[in-house]
Amino acid sequence: MKKGSYVSILGDGGWGTALSIILYRNGYKVKLWSAFEEYARFLDKKRVNSKFLKGIHIPYDIIITSNLKEALDFCNTIILAIPSQHIRGVLNRIKKAYLQEKVFLSVVKGIENRSLKRMSEVIYEELGNVNLAVLSGPNISFEIAKSIPSVSVVASKNSKIARYFQDILMNDHFRIYTNDDVTGVELGGSLKNVIALACGISDGMGHGTNTKAALITRGLVEISKLGKAMGAKKETFYGASGLGDLVTTCVSPHSRNRFVGQEIAKGRKLSQIIDRMDMIAEGVFTTKAAYSLAKKYKVEMPIVSQMHSVLYQGKSSSKALKDLMLRKKKSE
Amino acid sequence: MKKGSYVSILGDGGWGTALSIILYRNGYKVKLWSAFEEYARFLDKKRVNSKFLKGIHIPYDIIITSNLKEALDFCNTIILAIPSQHIRGVLNRIKKAYLQEKVFLSVVKGIENRSLKRMSEVIYEELGNVNLAVLSGPNISFEIAKSIPSVSVVASKNSKIARYFQDILMNDHFRIYTNDDVTGVELGGSLKNVIALACGISDGMGHGTNTKAALITRGLVEISKLGKAMGAKKETFYGASGLGDLVTTCVSPHSRNRFVGQEIAKGRKLSQIIDRMDMIAEGVFTTKAAYSLAKKYKVEMPIVSQMHSVLYQGKSSSKALKDLMLRKKKSE
Repeated sequence: MKKGSYVSILGDGGWGTALSIILYRNGYKVKLWSAFEEYARFLDKKRVNSKFLKGIHIPYDIIITSNLKEALDFCNTIILAIPSQHIRGVLNRIKKAYLQEKVFLSVVKGIENRSLKRMSEVIYEELGNVNLAVLSGPNISFEIAKSIPSVSVVASKNSKIARYFQDILMNDHFRIYTNDDVTGVELGGSLKNVIALACGISDGMGHGTNTKAALITRGLVEISKLGKAMGAKKETFYGASGLGDLVTTCVSPHSRNRFVGQEIAKGRKLSQIIDRMDMIAEGVFTTKAAYSLAKKYKVEMPIVSQMHSVLYQGKSSSKALKDLMLRKKKSE
Repeated sequence: MKKGSYVSILGDGGWGTALSIILYRNGYKVKLWSAFEEYARFLDKKRVNSKFLKGIHIPYDIIITSNLKEALDFCNTIILAIPSQHIRGVLNRIKKAYLQEKVFLSVVKGIENRSLKRMSEVIYEELGNVNLAVLSGPNISFEIAKSIPSVSVVASKNSKIARYFQDILMNDHFRIYTNDDVTGVELGGSLKNVIALACGISDGMGHGTNTKAALITRGLVEISKLGKAMGAKKETFYGASGLGDLVTTCVSPHSRNRFVGQEIAKGRKLSQIIDRMDMIAEGVFTTKAAYSLAKKYKVEMPIVSQMHSVLYQGKSSSKALKDLMLRKKKSE
């Protein structure tokens, strides 16, 4: 499984598109699957994903299709790049295919609200014991597509699978680290979105870099506490898929979750904000899941708890931020 | 030593001025000492530190003086807020005073190039075994003076002294954590400036958030490795004085070290850049010290090493960044 491998990317979002372009550049045969026939035709004709990855040309050798069977038959390697809310639907459509010889990479972020399961758990549940790794890191799709120097993390219980994806994804501009802590890598990539919402609120209130740094630092503390309670390694949260991704999401002007926070700070209602967005702000759902997980594992998560009050209990964002600052004196 | 304490701040920079304003607001009697008679008169008359803290009013009850004896006689609490290059000079001028009943807080960042000593080590060397704590955290002076929500860390071997400074500095907008790892807190506050230079270079080359997140994450890994070798606790580097301060410095548009990096990426010579700056970019000196420390403690520090080559051996910044990305494949 080296040069010459056939890779199908399931999902037509910004990240799926950027990954298809990287793999094409790295010398692989690539198919990009969209769930929407009309949008697949549009992508194939225009060769720009104008909804999710503006201004980036999609090479003609990347085959675009909305035929799921065609995408599956074509490849030995499948990248799952579908929003968490829709992943079960797609997994259900592919579970009857013969998948044992295929290798899967999940780049899906989020936690299922109903079951509180991570995405790899959902995938195993639906597909059985497939060959699986997950990818997560400080990776804004547009920058990856532009070959801006970036790092990321591939995690798998099976080190061979992790190294396989390290091999096919890594190039001069994209440095991949392997890790065996799947739980930690998935949680870091999901929970960061709650802290990004808090950073958005802080930005919307006109606060500065100091406040953002405080939210990032204390956010990482509570995320890693929850992660440890859930069986992840603490160190993972201080690596590229934890700290790195958290910083990117809290700082980037492109972050959807930060945007939602900013709008909330301006006094707009969550439902109004979401209605007007083209893309999905995962953090809105993840806040609910994180709040439930904190209760389940009895971990104190002050930022998650305040964000939950703001999003779902009508608490004012200025009161929430004040309550965070006024907690009792502590050592680190 | 509570309300009613008398505090003298030695040093007329942005940070010293901001701390004098906070302590005044918290109810203490405050003197601010400038080494320069003329600038002290200017500050006293204008009540704005227009060189280092533009647009912030200095309350009239803060006494401004250039008389060091007057500042020492006045107080029971001394804050050292002097650039690292000048700290020995000032310590030499005060070492003959009776200092045993006074409490010191060092907010000085940097490592002495000649001796590779941290600032608290320099202070003990000059003043003997005084009561000492250090303060470091994600604190842009201007934002602190504006009461923007911020956190910081006070560290001391003596927990009573740490708690004393927590008590007098903390308020609704400024949350202070205590810590007993003086080495870790001082190293975090100093070494971050080397990574900020690298982030400045990345920005100057037009790279994005992904690259910055990678530099921050991997920078923290090498800083904490060196710290551990020097006797600090690894966790300290993931707290507000490590990670928090690193993020702030690498992201803030006000960072002097980041600015120097940006200018280097444009192809300008280090000597030219420094000549034209009003303020001191500590990172330029700290790079040298960090490079020597890495050798002394036999710790691999790829970013420090590349920055040393760029600043002092004429290596091009694009080659340095490329060499960082192309290191051999690794697990985290």
